[in-house]
Amino acid sequence: MNRKYTSALLENAVSALSSLPGIGRKTALRLALYMLRRDVGYTENFASALLALRKEVKYCRVCHNMCEEEKCRICSDMRRDHSTICVVENIKEVMAIENTGQYRGVYHVLGGIISPMDGIGPHDLEIESLVERVASREIKEVILALSTTMEGDTTGFFIYRKLSPYNVQVSVIARGISIGDEIEYADEITLGRSILNRTSFVVNNVNNE
Amino acid sequence: MNRKYTSALLENAVSALSSLPGIGRKTALRLALYMLRRDVGYTENFASALLALRKEVKYCRVCHNMCEEEKCRICSDMRRDHSTICVVENIKEVMAIENTGQYRGVYHVLGGIISPMDGIGPHDLEIESLVERVASREIKEVILALSTTMEGDTTGFFIYRKLSPYNVQVSVIARGISIGDEIEYADEITLGRSILNRTSFVVNNVNNE
Repeated sequence: MNRKYTSALLENAVSALSSLPGIGRKTALRLALYMLRRDVGYTENFASALLALRKEVKYCRVCHNMCEEEKCRICSDMRRDHSTICVVENIKEVMAIENTGQYRGVYHVLGGIISPMDGIGPHDLEIESLVERVASREIKEVILALSTTMEGDTTGFFIYRKLSPYNVQVSVIARGISIGDEIEYADEITLGRSILNRTSFVVNNVNNE
Repeated sequence: MNRKYTSALLENAVSALSSLPGIGRKTALRLALYMLRRDVGYTENFASALLALRKEVKYCRVCHNMCEEEKCRICSDMRRDHSTICVVENIKEVMAIENTGQYRGVYHVLGGIISPMDGIGPHDLEIESLVERVASREIKEVILALSTTMEGDTTGFFIYRKLSPYNVQVSVIARGISIGDEIEYADEITLGRSILNRTSFVVNNVNNE
C-alpha cells in the first residue's frame, strides 16, 4: 500500500527505516512515530551509535574479526590455543561459538561465503589470508564451521583443497540431530548422516545436554 | 541471552537498535551487520533522515497534524469541508482515513488517548484546543474516530461532555463486522452492536465492499 504522508520528513525517515532488511513500511512508520515521542537526545544517541559503528569499526588484521584495535581480543589472548583455527563465515558465528564456551582456539572470519548467484567468488573472501596463516605459523588443525548449505559446502571444499599442500588437519563441525530435537521430525539427510557419523556413548555427550 | 560482543561500538549500535519497540537483540545485530556491509553513505543518510524528522518536524497549529509549515496541507485546502472535524488519536489514523478517500472534512489530532494506567490525562491531550475550535468557528459535526477500547471510549465520552454546551453534532464512526470478516467468527459484542445499529440495505453499502 502506498500511503500518502503529510510530511516529506516523515516520508524520508520511513524510507530510511524500511530500507533495512525485514522492516516494512508499516513497521518503519511505527518506529518513526516512536522516535517522535521520545526526546531529541534519544534520536541523537541512536544516530551517533550507528555512525560510530560504521565509521570507526576495525577488523583484526589476523583473523578479520570485528575489533577496535589492530588485533582482536581473541587473537591477543595468549591463553588461547593459537594452533587451532576455526573458520567461520561472519562475526555472528564467532559470537555464537564464543557463547558455547566450548572452544579455546582462534578464529578466521571469511567475511562471506562463495556464492556465484550473488557474485561472490573466492577472491572476495579472506581465503588467501587463511592459507598464509597456515603456511607461516605452526597450525595443527583448521575447523570448518560453515553453514550446511550448498554454498557452505562449496566454500569448505575450496578451502580444503587450498590447504591440502600443508601439513594441517582440516575438520568440519559435527552435523546431526540438534539437542532437544525429536528424531521423528528430523529430515532424512541429517538423520542418515547422524547414523553414519555416530560416536561412542560417553558420559561427556550426556553432560553436554 | 546476553551475548558477548567483541566490540564496544557494536554493543552500542545493537543497544540503540534494540531499544526500538519490537526489535530484539538478535534482529538488532542483524541490522547492524547489514549497515556494516553497506557503504558509509547509507548509514549517513539513514542517520540524517531520522535526525531531520526529529528536529525539524512541526505540527499544524490548527489540527496538530504533522507538517512542515505552520498549517498542514489538509487545513490549508479550501476545497475541504472545514465544518466537519474528525477527531483521531494520532497522525497514523489521519493517514489511514485519508487513504480511504471517503472523507472530505478536516481533522483534529489529540496526540494520544486518556489512559490513567500510563499517566495520560485529558490535559496531556489536545482536547482544550478542540473545544476552542468548536467555540470559535461554525462547526457542524465532530466525528470521533477513536479505538474501540476502554481508553478510546473514555476519551470519546470526555470530549462529548466538553462539547455538549455547543451547538455541534457529535458522532462516532460505525462499529460492526469488518468487511471480509465471517459472521461466525465475529465476537459477540461486535455482532450484537452491528445488529442494534443496522442500517437500511442500500446500494452504497454494497459498493463500499
